[in-house]
Amino acid sequence: MNKTFNKLKEHLEIIQAFTEALTLYDWDLQTQAPKESMDYNSKTIGILSNEYYKALVNLKVRRLLEKLETDKEFETLDSNEKAIVRKLRKTYNGIAFIPQQEYREFSEFSAKSVSKWEKAKENKDFNEFVPALKEMIDYKKKFISYRKSGRQKIYDILLEDYEEGFKMQELDIFFEKIKEALIPLVKQVSEKSKTIDKSYNHQKYDIQKQKEFCKWLSGYLGFNFNRGIIGESTHPFTTNLSNHDVRITNHFNQENLESAIFSAIHETGHAIYEMNVSDELTQTIIGGGASCGMHESQSRFFENIIGKSHAFWEYVYPKLVATFPEQLKDVSLDEFLIGINKSAPSPVRIEADELTYTFHIIIRYEIEKMIFQNKVKVENLSKVWNKKYKEYLGIIPENDSEGILQDIHWAGGDFGYFSSYAIGNAIAAQIYYYMKSIMPFDEYLRQGNITPIREFLNSNIHQYGMKKNTNEILKDLMNEELSVDYFIRYMREKYTKLFNLGE
Amino acid sequence: MNKTFNKLKEHLEIIQAFTEALTLYDWDLQTQAPKESMDYNSKTIGILSNEYYKALVNLKVRRLLEKLETDKEFETLDSNEKAIVRKLRKTYNGIAFIPQQEYREFSEFSAKSVSKWEKAKENKDFNEFVPALKEMIDYKKKFISYRKSGRQKIYDILLEDYEEGFKMQELDIFFEKIKEALIPLVKQVSEKSKTIDKSYNHQKYDIQKQKEFCKWLSGYLGFNFNRGIIGESTHPFTTNLSNHDVRITNHFNQENLESAIFSAIHETGHAIYEMNVSDELTQTIIGGGASCGMHESQSRFFENIIGKSHAFWEYVYPKLVATFPEQLKDVSLDEFLIGINKSAPSPVRIEADELTYTFHIIIRYEIEKMIFQNKVKVENLSKVWNKKYKEYLGIIPENDSEGILQDIHWAGGDFGYFSSYAIGNAIAAQIYYYMKSIMPFDEYLRQGNITPIREFLNSNIHQYGMKKNTNEILKDLMNEELSVDYFIRYMREKYTKLFNLGE
Repeated sequence: MNKTFNKLKEHLEIIQAFTEALTLYDWDLQTQAPKESMDYNSKTIGILSNEYYKALVNLKVRRLLEKLETDKEFETLDSNEKAIVRKLRKTYNGIAFIPQQEYREFSEFSAKSVSKWEKAKENKDFNEFVPALKEMIDYKKKFISYRKSGRQKIYDILLEDYEEGFKMQELDIFFEKIKEALIPLVKQVSEKSKTIDKSYNHQKYDIQKQKEFCKWLSGYLGFNFNRGIIGESTHPFTTNLSNHDVRITNHFNQENLESAIFSAIHETGHAIYEMNVSDELTQTIIGGGASCGMHESQSRFFENIIGKSHAFWEYVYPKLVATFPEQLKDVSLDEFLIGINKSAPSPVRIEADELTYTFHIIIRYEIEKMIFQNKVKVENLSKVWNKKYKEYLGIIPENDSEGILQDIHWAGGDFGYFSSYAIGNAIAAQIYYYMKSIMPFDEYLRQGNITPIREFLNSNIHQYGMKKNTNEILKDLMNEELSVDYFIRYMREKYTKLFNLGE
Repeated sequence: MNKTFNKLKEHLEIIQAFTEALTLYDWDLQTQAPKESMDYNSKTIGILSNEYYKALVNLKVRRLLEKLETDKEFETLDSNEKAIVRKLRKTYNGIAFIPQQEYREFSEFSAKSVSKWEKAKENKDFNEFVPALKEMIDYKKKFISYRKSGRQKIYDILLEDYEEGFKMQELDIFFEKIKEALIPLVKQVSEKSKTIDKSYNHQKYDIQKQKEFCKWLSGYLGFNFNRGIIGESTHPFTTNLSNHDVRITNHFNQENLESAIFSAIHETGHAIYEMNVSDELTQTIIGGGASCGMHESQSRFFENIIGKSHAFWEYVYPKLVATFPEQLKDVSLDEFLIGINKSAPSPVRIEADELTYTFHIIIRYEIEKMIFQNKVKVENLSKVWNKKYKEYLGIIPENDSEGILQDIHWAGGDFGYFSSYAIGNAIAAQIYYYMKSIMPFDEYLRQGNITPIREFLNSNIHQYGMKKNTNEILKDLMNEELSVDYFIRYMREKYTKLFNLGE
């Protein structure tokens, strides 16, 4: 093994340990920590974050990294080591140009900003959040300016932090195509949806039984309970300490059966990705999913493409009916399928259906672009928000809580993140058509045989962790890069068939 | 504030953060982490332990500590700061003389030793554990030798690590008195116990209902759910990240009602201690209970002195019967009380009743003494063990699993710890008689009014954290140091009355 890399490895192991400890704290805070612990554990998290910073940003790491990046050294590395060096450079640059003191201040500010957002959301008043949001935007601009070269655009850097290769140039086209194709479809489908009665979904569904069914469902899809657990939290999420310790959460509502089911499928999709990253990459800086978009492609592949398909429910629906016979005995499989695919514009992203979902992303993308191109005053964002909802979805949020304040992302400084949700949807559709062309996809689902589908994803996507980026994975798999056309085709085909459009 | 202390504080905060992160990992491993995570999270724990070591043992901390210990500086400190300096010295000396490499090797060995013990226990074969136990003993001897001054005895140092002021000199007398007084009592009581039928305890008790009742019980005793949570683990335990984040666990057995109830009361006793340490000491090195013995005194005060008393159950038993009417409708309060106090020699400490419990401790104390005075070969320990059980309790364990291998302590290197369990019992009894002399103790229990009892313990014991040691707390409270006489009196009075002995 390369001597320099070996030295670097000692540092990387410490950095990794801090990352994992912080992940564990985050899991703990979201799933179980008692109310009063917040202030105290936040202090500890602050200190551990600072130790993480110190372990990463120092002269020793910098010199080792620079040495490894010289041609002479780099050539001697194996492919994993090369990927680690590349990823470390990205991580290093993302943080190293921020002075330690500012990084610490920012960490503290983030926590405060989130609590300001929470309060403003509670009071349904965007104005309350404006000062914190302004400060957050200023922080992001300042931090990006530290590492930006002359011509680069700030928002491009933010976007590429989450998804390499997807700058405004690419995303403008991507989203324009979607708008053009899907705005008319949204109108058609939501018109048809008006008559759909899905009151069955809002009967009383025993929570313990929901839990058991969802646990079964996760296992059925491939969640490995030897290397994962399922918890509960307000908003479902997936996290992992390593590929042998992957954790998902769910939330349960007695009067909404779908909510927990599709959260379970979604998070299981994320979990299966992490659980199947190759052991060669375990507990390294490249030991997680390739990118946010790639990750979201897997969760949405399971949630929507598999989880909202007729073939999937042919096998699974009888089990759901057996769990809730009283509530579902008079609901046929076809009625259930129409129910879970009912589509109508709504103000809240995380409650949106598959078809209207992307418009929530488009709106955020366009607003973030305006923010970082200084084309809008922060004070006016709520108005801009509501105008865009009217324009694209024909609705206006009743208040800021279900409008511009609905998501936590901006409060935590996550600008540029939302697009990866849309990229994920597009990837999922593209992979779907490819898989259909080489395997009896629907037949597997009908038989309740998820294994070949999951193994295909494991061996072509999951195992690589961050060794490849999104486009490399797609190219190696299907000989083409991301194309939004499949997503559009998928939406058209699906809804045309489901709602007999144009017939 | 003292400038030197202020500088030290920065180091202390980092040390504290690592301690808490390690505590969180321990909680996680014991309550929920998936099976396969073990190897990977252990590695992370090893790295964090090493970071803890580096944060504590270094020239900067040493110099600041030495400076603060000079009369000139020490005098300027307030009482909390003085206690912190004293405690830091103790912690520092406990670890600093061990070379970093050896500390790391030991940490890794400990984990292995525990898994050797687990396997040996499974196979009921002490011989399998002998090599690891030998190595562990050698480690302890070596580590103690690094900090031992000429005349000190190794086992005294081990004992005082857990309980300041309780060396062999004191404990020999302590245990001899107990033996003398209680061996005849054990015989009388276990003879009387033979006729007690407690089959009611082994009916089917719904686990969900047990959980709800135990949760209610914890709250009733004073567990603050805003600063604590209850989890599940194989062996119940209490841990804490701070006094605002205290965590207990329980285990449930469908066919043993008592087991969960008394574990809940015991761990709640520990939790109430931690939750009521003064906020002045939060997240400092003296922010936990005074000592193991003092801690155990609180858990056992609640579990036995309160929790096995007639007065306590006068209020609580109707609630238990209401929870399990089918199973308990024909069991009177008096029958229940006799049942929970049934006493008979048994081989396993954690299943032992209040009266025979101390003999399990005496046996371990005597054997540990032999080990560290080099008076026994490790290979022969199983024989020695069984001989002592025959001598003191009149029974011989059926195998090593329920004999010498029953406890994890030695495998993890915890020698000298067991005595604090017995010290805890003695403290609890002494406090009990004092409280009875100044408040209507039984009356409070009968009324279901735990508050004045708990508040008395809060203000006289809990709030001080580690600012005082065991004897200081007792002296300030009752004007006398620990005396075993109260414990003996308590046992005699209790069992004489309960079983009509000598009447």
